Amino acid sequence: MEYPWDDLTLAFSRTSMFPFFDVAHYLVSVMALRQRPGAAAVAWSNPVSSWLSAMLHCFGGGILSCVLLAEPPVKFLTNHTNILLASSIWYIVFFCPRDLVSQGYSYLPIQLLAAGMKEVTRTWKIVGGVTHANSYYKNGWIVMIAIGWARGAGGVIVTSCEQLLKGDWKPKGDEWLKMSFPSKVTLLGSIIFTFQQTKHLAVSKHDLMFLYTFFLVTIKVTMMVTKDSTVTLAPFEDTLSRMLFGWQQQFSMSEKQTESKPSSNGTTSSASKPTIEDLDDAKRLAKKED
Amino acid sequence: MEYPWDDLTLAFSRTSMFPFFDVAHYLVSVMALRQRPGAAAVAWSNPVSSWLSAMLHCFGGGILSCVLLAEPPVKFLTNHTNILLASSIWYIVFFCPRDLVSQGYSYLPIQLLAAGMKEVTRTWKIVGGVTHANSYYKNGWIVMIAIGWARGAGGVIVTSCEQLLKGDWKPKGDEWLKMSFPSKVTLLGSIIFTFQQTKHLAVSKHDLMFLYTFFLVTIKVTMMVTKDSTVTLAPFEDTLSRMLFGWQQQFSMSEKQTESKPSSNGTTSSASKPTIEDLDDAKRLAKKED
Amino acid sequence: MEYPWDDLTLAFSRTSMFPFFDVAHYLVSVMALRQRPGAAAVAWSNPVSSWLSAMLHCFGGGILSCVLLAEPPVKFLTNHTNILLASSIWYIVFFCPRDLVSQGYSYLPIQLLAAGMKEVTRTWKIVGGVTHANSYYKNGWIVMIAIGWARGAGGVIVTSCEQLLKGDWKPKGDEWLKMSFPSKVTLLGSIIFTFQQTKHLAVSKHDLMFLYTFFLVTIKVTMMVTKDSTVTLAPFEDTLSRMLFGWQQQFSMSEKQTESKPSSNGTTSSASKPTIEDLDDAKRLAKKED
Repeated sequence: MEYPWDDLTLAFSRTSMFPFFDVAHYLVSVMALRQRPGAAAVAWSNPVSSWLSAMLHCFGGGILSCVLLAEPPVKFLTNHTNILLASSIWYIVFFCPRDLVSQGYSYLPIQLLAAGMKEVTRTWKIVGGVTHANSYYKNGWIVMIAIGWARGAGGVIVTSCEQLLKGDWKPKGDEWLKMSFPSKVTLLGSIIFTFQQTKHLAVSKHDLMFLYTFFLVTIKVTMMVTKDSTVTLAPFEDTLSRMLFGWQQQFSMSEKQTESKPSSNGTTSSASKPTIEDLDDAKRLAKKED
Repeated sequence: MEYPWDDLTLAFSRTSMFPFFDVAHYLVSVMALRQRPGAAAVAWSNPVSSWLSAMLHCFGGGILSCVLLAEPPVKFLTNHTNILLASSIWYIVFFCPRDLVSQGYSYLPIQLLAAGMKEVTRTWKIVGGVTHANSYYKNGWIVMIAIGWARGAGGVIVTSCEQLLKGDWKPKGDEWLKMSFPSKVTLLGSIIFTFQQTKHLAVSKHDLMFLYTFFLVTIKVTMMVTKDSTVTLAPFEDTLSRMLFGWQQQFSMSEKQTESKPSSNGTTSSASKPTIEDLDDAKRLAKKED
Repeated sequence: MEYPWDDLTLAFSRTSMFPFFDVAHYLVSVMALRQRPGAAAVAWSNPVSSWLSAMLHCFGGGILSCVLLAEPPVKFLTNHTNILLASSIWYIVFFCPRDLVSQGYSYLPIQLLAAGMKEVTRTWKIVGGVTHANSYYKNGWIVMIAIGWARGAGGVIVTSCEQLLKGDWKPKGDEWLKMSFPSKVTLLGSIIFTFQQTKHLAVSKHDLMFLYTFFLVTIKVTMMVTKDSTVTLAPFEDTLSRMLFGWQQQFSMSEKQTESKPSSNGTTSSASKPTIEDLDDAKRLAKKED
């Protein structure tokens, strides 16, 4: 049963995002903008600004990757078809009479469908970013990871900057301090696809795309159905962090006991020893978000 | 009487901005910086920072369009003549004994003259931005509009970012939520000149430049003479918004009556229905600025 | 004794920064990050974000100069060796058991050695920036100064933006209003090396590098030994500002006496006259930082 599987994954990896998946992505992004407090009133009082925000929400990842590669950030504006598509979705979402769209979007099945299709576009974006960066820097695998990550999950950074400029957003380091689940999983995928690109991963790209997308969609849907956002990556993360940094904690614990020894420096000692309390606080903070 | 008109507009469209109009633009920009609270003291305590701010005020639009097209933002520094001009104006504005310049600038006729000449440079900037973007992206008319807009009115965004970095400025989304009058009229001009560039507008460019500049200067001067900043574009905007979104309001009004029907979703309904109150608030907000 | 001197400076100017001086630079930068309140806890709760901050601290100047020249800001990620070096230093600084590194770094001699070596890298960065900008813009000496300055001292701007995004940092215009001592001395060096590059300064580059580095290291070490940060540039600055703007103060003083004359405008007069109090406040503010 080798061939059917290959045929399936190949056909899947050749799916065109253009009409339907893009629409789903734009719909989810614009609805996210719509559900911000005051967004509707802004759309009425100043449509241009609202349209700009919508575009940033729809194409944020591409813009960020363009900035990182020193390409014109306005390049996305040359793709007139997608701009038109996103604009019309912005229009019907904000100005459809009786809010039919919002009403419809509020039904869980539709949300599930749209969110699932949006996750599919994420895979395509990561792969596109990785290959694009590879065309710039041969073997620049860190750059490939960064660009794949930026194009897949960077939209939130762009919109944060936009909100910062508009003053709607008081930065609390959310996206930086405790990465949201999409950021984490996008980073993971970006690493995987980069290794596949640099031939360190002996899997064919279309298989990888199929499996990663399946993984993404499954997690997303389960997270939406069971309103449970404590992330399935937690055990994986814990293992990793224990592998990398865990053996510290024993040390710092034993250090706790020997805390009474005179510390040789006054300046750094405040920041130098992450005591168990710090760690617990940090973990609790992180948990709250993830 | 065809020929004299053509001769006039052609001669006008060939006017060089360099010595006089640029001076007026720099003077207005630096005076705007000067009139910020504390700017004078900063110029005394740290001339370098004040000089940087002045340069950002004078060349902000060009910098923004460079950023949008992924050209070096420092490119404007290579035009030594204009830098020298702007720097000397910054110098005499801030350090002229007895503030002769500020004193002189405080007379209305001089302000009118300088503001009018600055508006002339605005036309040249928009045209320059549109043609420059056209050399990048053939038929990328959205990009052309964006670049023309950025070069014509983007300075305020650059200076806002600078003030944000300096902490002088708490963002309240002024420039984004309710566009100032220059932004609006620059956007209008950018659209017009883009259509002229893409041959959708059967007018010769020099005629258009003449008429648009005339329009700009007239409005600016009248606005300054009659301290009245409620904008002459208001009726135009209202018509447009009624054309685009007006038929909504009837719906939302009728919706108001049928408000009692059970809303199917709790989550979005808060943002979903821009009630008349929202609209009025928004409009009032917008009015306050325009 | 001409030859030995030339040999010495030539040999010095050919020193490779790579293993040791870079390590010192990364160590100082990461320790600066480490000593921020809460940085250690963040490194435990979210290593990726902490690693990103560390990279920004280590390569900030290069990133800023890339942005200013419209080169990919991620270019520094292609230098895998230095990334690996910086990452390992970040790792041992934050996760070394019992904080051996912090403990060791807290001894003054080690700090002096590291800081001195870091200052050496500053010279190399300025020279690199100036020559790099020269390859872009022949005779664009303002650009050369700007790029040399950015690469030498721009890291602090990048990290400020990063902290602004993370919300750790309330901007108070520190770096802009009153330039820190490194900024000033880097600007000075950038100007000197630019003039050398444009042949306006008849000194061989290796002599200049030797002397400037000697100057940097001496000042830095003396400033660290005598916890005295009131800057040795103060007399130089005072002379310069007296040359450029000093003759103003007599005028504004005489103006003080004639303050009673009716001011012709109400709007600008508040900002227009920097009274002696303003100046004193400004100077006091500036002193506090320098």
